[in-house]
Amino acid sequence: MATIKDIANRLGISVSTVSKGLNGASDISESLRQAVLDTAVELGYTTKQMRGKVQKKLCIFVENMDYETPEEFGYDIILGFRQAAYHEHYDITVTPVTPLFQSTQKYDTYMLRNGYVGAFMIGFALQDDWMTQFNDTDIPTVLLDNYIKKNPAVSYIGTDSFEGIDDAIVHLMQMGHSRIALINGSRNSMISEQRRQAYIDGMTAHGLSFSEETMPYGYYVADAAKDHVSNLLSMGITAILCCNDLMASGVIAECRKRGFRVPEDVSVIGFDDLPISAQLVPPLTTIRQDRLVLGKCGFYSLHSLINHVPISRTMLRPQLIVRKSTGTAAIQDDSL
Amino acid sequence: MATIKDIANRLGISVSTVSKGLNGASDISESLRQAVLDTAVELGYTTKQMRGKVQKKLCIFVENMDYETPEEFGYDIILGFRQAAYHEHYDITVTPVTPLFQSTQKYDTYMLRNGYVGAFMIGFALQDDWMTQFNDTDIPTVLLDNYIKKNPAVSYIGTDSFEGIDDAIVHLMQMGHSRIALINGSRNSMISEQRRQAYIDGMTAHGLSFSEETMPYGYYVADAAKDHVSNLLSMGITAILCCNDLMASGVIAECRKRGFRVPEDVSVIGFDDLPISAQLVPPLTTIRQDRLVLGKCGFYSLHSLINHVPISRTMLRPQLIVRKSTGTAAIQDDSL
Repeated sequence: MATIKDIANRLGISVSTVSKGLNGASDISESLRQAVLDTAVELGYTTKQMRGKVQKKLCIFVENMDYETPEEFGYDIILGFRQAAYHEHYDITVTPVTPLFQSTQKYDTYMLRNGYVGAFMIGFALQDDWMTQFNDTDIPTVLLDNYIKKNPAVSYIGTDSFEGIDDAIVHLMQMGHSRIALINGSRNSMISEQRRQAYIDGMTAHGLSFSEETMPYGYYVADAAKDHVSNLLSMGITAILCCNDLMASGVIAECRKRGFRVPEDVSVIGFDDLPISAQLVPPLTTIRQDRLVLGKCGFYSLHSLINHVPISRTMLRPQLIVRKSTGTAAIQDDSL
Repeated sequence: MATIKDIANRLGISVSTVSKGLNGASDISESLRQAVLDTAVELGYTTKQMRGKVQKKLCIFVENMDYETPEEFGYDIILGFRQAAYHEHYDITVTPVTPLFQSTQKYDTYMLRNGYVGAFMIGFALQDDWMTQFNDTDIPTVLLDNYIKKNPAVSYIGTDSFEGIDDAIVHLMQMGHSRIALINGSRNSMISEQRRQAYIDGMTAHGLSFSEETMPYGYYVADAAKDHVSNLLSMGITAILCCNDLMASGVIAECRKRGFRVPEDVSVIGFDDLPISAQLVPPLTTIRQDRLVLGKCGFYSLHSLINHVPISRTMLRPQLIVRKSTGTAAIQDDSL
């Protein structure tokens, strides 16, 4: 169990300042108080007072997503959710679920039996068993990156792919690129369809050419680069958008293997901005999803549903982080 | 100034129970406590303790929308916003603005001079002066029914027109209608374009015919019926969706004048569910926007922006309220 001293050490402030933050004293700034509370959540610090309170129970279900260390995609999402929930005295459980688990446990039954009043689902795919059960559940449920139609108990949160991909296309055009490809994620996913449409809309809006061949699916694995990079380069593509940073790292390696320099010959853009992406060679230009904010937003949406505000979707702004994997196009030519 | 007795009378409970609700006592239910607080806000009750607190100031700007009485569209939106804001100790000002006001006052300057840390804008149209200023403002700003691209300080909230209009089309189809028209709102509005697209998508998804003539603009005025009803009926339309309840009431009156019965000859559906719509003859079937919830959601979004969570949009579920203005189609025929 973390102590006040641990929080003080992490923030580099005195124990008495931490105390003030935890107790809501008025002589420290609001932003410092928030930092104290956020760090308390991250380190798992709880006060006697908190432990004594009757708490409502929420569950975060994680399917097919890593979240154990700060480098992994799910870590900050879960942390953000817990930080936002801290102020409202909810008790949070994180439960990994497999397809097998879903096929043997009915969602509503599992929630009721465990006394959960709401849930946040991350990493679920369209074919998951529970996805069909969300059509009819009465239990407040928020899905990251999945949308359920017409059920007022269920809400969707995600990052706005349309703005993110348009930002990336504009950035590339400003450096003379017109032959831009998209390596998408998995086929069986709402987000992949959204990003595919965002690419089509963006390319169309800016008068650029594209085809089925310029928007292949890469299933979020680095190895996808092997299947697609050669074909894309032979078509004269000068810039490749990838739907996660891992695929972008694979594309950079594959380009190098084939004697193409990044960004001199080919520009590469990722999606997510994982902590490691700034350390790639070259450091990766990427469309940032703020995962801490996604987690907070997941909690706010769930809290709204629990309070009978039937939000159907909440979208967050992405942010294009420009590093060194994008540069001026070698060939400037508008015909694809 | 309202007293505790006023709150007790309104809710039909004792003064001591009101006291408990205001003071957060643990021996009354959470829902009763919420009802006490919500009523306190509605009646304008404040405690000494509340008045003593340093409060952050927010402004609700109202352009082209009535909000003075409970029958008017804006009343519950503002009330819902105030009720949600109550718990966070914000001070709320409501300021009506005209086009002239906007052309003489710069938005950011006005906000800073008055010490507002955020704003909620209701009733604004695309051509309003301030709309272009929202592209660049740094001040947390939430717009009802208007979307600003790529500015992380600004967020959009609204009711999901796609689900609402699809619900209405499905309801009509179940009663044998296939010749369905949409009388839209004003041309110069994002919401009108969204609802036009929702009508096109819904009709297409269900294999129904439509044309430019079946989706005229009615500018939200009851008189629009005069311009369109005769033409729609002569085309064999058997059901008319209207983009607010006022136009629906005009359509019902115009049908009657022309010897058509509602719903025996023509079904009519409104949008909004104003309090008066249940009192029309026949009582109006309508796509409900829960305005109290819209207002609460407006506050939650603004609160998120102020706390650096850059939500770009939040959509709420609509609800189809079925009353007596829709019925079985007289002519069941799929060719338009």
